[in-house]
Amino acid sequence: MQSETRQRKKSWKQRLVLKSSLAKEMLSEFLGTFIMIVLGCGSVAQAVLSRGHFGGIVTIIIGFPMAVAMAIYVTGGVSGGHVNPAVSFAMCLFGRMKWVKFPFYVGAQLLGAFAGSAVLFGIYYDAFMSFAGGKLLIVGENATAHIFATYPAPYLSLANAFAEQVASTMFLIIVVFAIFDSRNLGVPRGLEPIAVGLLIAVLTSSLGMNSGNAMNPARDLGPRLFTALAGWGFEVFTAGNNFWWIPVVGPFVGAAIGGLIYVVFIEIHQPDPKADLEAEQPEDKPEKHELDAVM
Amino acid sequence: MQSETRQRKKSWKQRLVLKSSLAKEMLSEFLGTFIMIVLGCGSVAQAVLSRGHFGGIVTIIIGFPMAVAMAIYVTGGVSGGHVNPAVSFAMCLFGRMKWVKFPFYVGAQLLGAFAGSAVLFGIYYDAFMSFAGGKLLIVGENATAHIFATYPAPYLSLANAFAEQVASTMFLIIVVFAIFDSRNLGVPRGLEPIAVGLLIAVLTSSLGMNSGNAMNPARDLGPRLFTALAGWGFEVFTAGNNFWWIPVVGPFVGAAIGGLIYVVFIEIHQPDPKADLEAEQPEDKPEKHELDAVM
Amino acid sequence: MQSETRQRKKSWKQRLVLKSSLAKEMLSEFLGTFIMIVLGCGSVAQAVLSRGHFGGIVTIIIGFPMAVAMAIYVTGGVSGGHVNPAVSFAMCLFGRMKWVKFPFYVGAQLLGAFAGSAVLFGIYYDAFMSFAGGKLLIVGENATAHIFATYPAPYLSLANAFAEQVASTMFLIIVVFAIFDSRNLGVPRGLEPIAVGLLIAVLTSSLGMNSGNAMNPARDLGPRLFTALAGWGFEVFTAGNNFWWIPVVGPFVGAAIGGLIYVVFIEIHQPDPKADLEAEQPEDKPEKHELDAVM
Amino acid sequence: MQSETRQRKKSWKQRLVLKSSLAKEMLSEFLGTFIMIVLGCGSVAQAVLSRGHFGGIVTIIIGFPMAVAMAIYVTGGVSGGHVNPAVSFAMCLFGRMKWVKFPFYVGAQLLGAFAGSAVLFGIYYDAFMSFAGGKLLIVGENATAHIFATYPAPYLSLANAFAEQVASTMFLIIVVFAIFDSRNLGVPRGLEPIAVGLLIAVLTSSLGMNSGNAMNPARDLGPRLFTALAGWGFEVFTAGNNFWWIPVVGPFVGAAIGGLIYVVFIEIHQPDPKADLEAEQPEDKPEKHELDAVM
Repeated sequence: MQSETRQRKKSWKQRLVLKSSLAKEMLSEFLGTFIMIVLGCGSVAQAVLSRGHFGGIVTIIIGFPMAVAMAIYVTGGVSGGHVNPAVSFAMCLFGRMKWVKFPFYVGAQLLGAFAGSAVLFGIYYDAFMSFAGGKLLIVGENATAHIFATYPAPYLSLANAFAEQVASTMFLIIVVFAIFDSRNLGVPRGLEPIAVGLLIAVLTSSLGMNSGNAMNPARDLGPRLFTALAGWGFEVFTAGNNFWWIPVVGPFVGAAIGGLIYVVFIEIHQPDPKADLEAEQPEDKPEKHELDAVM
Repeated sequence: MQSETRQRKKSWKQRLVLKSSLAKEMLSEFLGTFIMIVLGCGSVAQAVLSRGHFGGIVTIIIGFPMAVAMAIYVTGGVSGGHVNPAVSFAMCLFGRMKWVKFPFYVGAQLLGAFAGSAVLFGIYYDAFMSFAGGKLLIVGENATAHIFATYPAPYLSLANAFAEQVASTMFLIIVVFAIFDSRNLGVPRGLEPIAVGLLIAVLTSSLGMNSGNAMNPARDLGPRLFTALAGWGFEVFTAGNNFWWIPVVGPFVGAAIGGLIYVVFIEIHQPDPKADLEAEQPEDKPEKHELDAVM
Repeated sequence: MQSETRQRKKSWKQRLVLKSSLAKEMLSEFLGTFIMIVLGCGSVAQAVLSRGHFGGIVTIIIGFPMAVAMAIYVTGGVSGGHVNPAVSFAMCLFGRMKWVKFPFYVGAQLLGAFAGSAVLFGIYYDAFMSFAGGKLLIVGENATAHIFATYPAPYLSLANAFAEQVASTMFLIIVVFAIFDSRNLGVPRGLEPIAVGLLIAVLTSSLGMNSGNAMNPARDLGPRLFTALAGWGFEVFTAGNNFWWIPVVGPFVGAAIGGLIYVVFIEIHQPDPKADLEAEQPEDKPEKHELDAVM
Repeated sequence: MQSETRQRKKSWKQRLVLKSSLAKEMLSEFLGTFIMIVLGCGSVAQAVLSRGHFGGIVTIIIGFPMAVAMAIYVTGGVSGGHVNPAVSFAMCLFGRMKWVKFPFYVGAQLLGAFAGSAVLFGIYYDAFMSFAGGKLLIVGENATAHIFATYPAPYLSLANAFAEQVASTMFLIIVVFAIFDSRNLGVPRGLEPIAVGLLIAVLTSSLGMNSGNAMNPARDLGPRLFTALAGWGFEVFTAGNNFWWIPVVGPFVGAAIGGLIYVVFIEIHQPDPKADLEAEQPEDKPEKHELDAVM
């Protein structure tokens, strides 16, 4: 009887198993970004909706970065745990991932971020309804839109905002490349997510004041789209002098610069143990597999 | 003389050694849940009883999750360090533990949580007596019942409360399954408790505002029963519109969904190194031993 | 020329090298306790002397435990990194260290704690002089004696204080034994100090409100003696109804109980890989070397 | 076509590859110190410029130390990740690095710190302009100079300030030597940066009140020079009774004392596994390569 149930379960499982590697990776990136948004934006939600009683800048600096770490633990072994189109972009640009996968990764990440926003809204539905008399506001002391997407500080010009998103993502990618570079110091396998989490904690406590430091187009655009549809209105796109495109475009520029800096300052000068081997191999093969395995 | 003492000690030890594997595991789960409650609820006690002078949301977000990590260090090698009936439930449901052990694990966890509450009450006895003139209250600014069990925020409906406990435990189990999945990225052996601690820190800082985010029937029911008997009265069960059953039932539902999501989204698509071997073996054997060792 | 200098340096070094293992270990325990007190009590000093501007309960919960971790990194490979007479006591009581070493360890720890207090006083001399008009006070809002030693909260009876020190040290030893138990889950070699640091962070955020949670006779008595001599006066011993002996005696009792609980609940039930070997060896040898190496 | 691009890219890379080991190391130290200043001083900037709304002592204690950790991850495998002239000094003084490299390391570190200050100023340009009506002040409640360099507390004498910088750097070097000493307990390879980060977190929360605890001549002098030129004026050098030289000279003295203490108290007493080997080798060779690899 029991063995029969198991048999049935097995075949049920077998029917679900994805043969396509890309499909698996999309599923993984969707789930990872989903987790990152629910738990990461959740830490902002708890601080905002409790008006500081159950959270604040410190809990956000613990909560959001470690939410990213947990997302990488769930997805790292399957899709590399990018959960960020700018990271996927850097991986493609520097030969760590095939370009053909790029749009699929980004699509899965955007969907995951959108779905995560919806679930977070559901988990805190009663809190949202009681926070400002049920009103979903973008500006003012009862604003809640910044739980989901980032908005600029009043003093910030668009030029400075753009420069900051470029610089922040640049630092993100420099250190991420270092963390996964086994010819550098390297982080022991299985602890990279925590190192990345600490990196994001640093970036959030250092460069987070201008505009919340998204550094991730999916993390910002997906939730912003959700708020536009869920009741905050399409002013989420026009707010802050049409700020919305800054955390979408800036991170791609920063990722390119950051990757280039790491390659030029550190990577190319390191002795390559496989240099002779590569010279003999066909041109298309030498992707960095150690790195690809986790990023 | 010294060697004689040792001999006597040895035979005293030998008489205590448990032959039954299940008895050992029950002892271990009892001790682990006991430690988790004294140190975890202790961090809430310090924040509440000092009226914020020696603790607050940040110390609780450090204290409670790391109390869970320490409980897993004490019990991980013997019973898997569940210290949570919802975790034991997920382990059984997904073939990582035998169902026959389930009621014994849950019993030991409930007893440990009850005993831990009593010891915590003893350690802070003078503080409790001086806090509200010796009164043990459930509601109001002098309430202390929420040191032990969780209570809902005023705005929270039962439906939202239940959905939140389901969702929180779902995320807990998804990431716990990932942390112990050696075919995914995986956490180095001996560091899983810290990764689980960080996971609970994230969940507490993100989804903790609605009702304190128990995610663990034993952690909530054991201490609630203690407060009912120790002087707070049986209103601890009727408070919050009979809230008490939400953190008891919700986590089991969430654990099932979370486990299913991890299996469907990630686990079944991974290449199984033992696939051929399993096909030849009898149906009852292939339990996941790597995972069982620590969870 | 250079090689000559090196030769001379070498012989200078050789003259300093200690042949006696015990002397090395005493030097190590002295240095470790010294570091722990300067940096650990230093975190309390920064919070108190800045009147909360540069520190508070959160920075103390980060600072003191991680000061212990750093002390263990410095001493772990030489003397086991006890930096605590109660830990040394538990090691002797449960056969992990020879009793003959015990008084030497305790002496070195006390001296290190006293010397550390003096250096800390020196580093913050100007701050002490400007804090309360140069007065060194034990009670009141300008008190600074609790920077060095622990004092009970006003509500606390001696009985409760003693029970708390016993319980706190009991939990300390239970988890420390688990952290270093390679037959349990175990912490990877070289990371035990951080796990112990996290453990102390938990204990400080959970059981720290009654009396500052010393859990260490040297950490409390050494600095208290220093304050008595340095200007606070011998009222540091009579304060709090002669509280001083509680954190001296309580930890020894707690260490014995904690070690016993770990042995009875966990250790003796685990399969012993060396069981057959031990049976054949002489009685005096089988000390636990894995544990001794770091504790 | 694609293979042709790659070929061109390769030769472009090959032209950039540095043959000189020292040049690589200078590039690495420059980049590391640059990252440390942007992200480390950035955490101070966020706390100061947001007037405490997005940062404070806790976020600085997380942000600055972990910025150092990230800098070490980027540079550790190439130049040892000193990012601090006092660390380079100790490495040379105790035979872990050749003296000839010392001035080059220090130069690269100073340049990196200066460049990092400029980039940080750019990232927060709008915030600086709006903070005090565009004025760049050194003293008063609108001061921003202490975002970059350290300044003494009002109560602090120069003698005490110097003693504190000596003592702080002494503790820094004692524990850094321990962290990288594979004959002591040792930190697993790839986790040293996090251990160093925790060490700096302890030092910042314990000894940070007197003058911000620079412990690093480059971290202090580079940014101070930048502020002098960028608009704060050369009063940044005369402020605090010409304080500027204290965090430049003090750390070198402290590094020498700290290294000596570690060697005399711990290192020379440890059994040397290569003792016999060294005796036969020429005098110039036996540098500690394990240590050099990361420091």
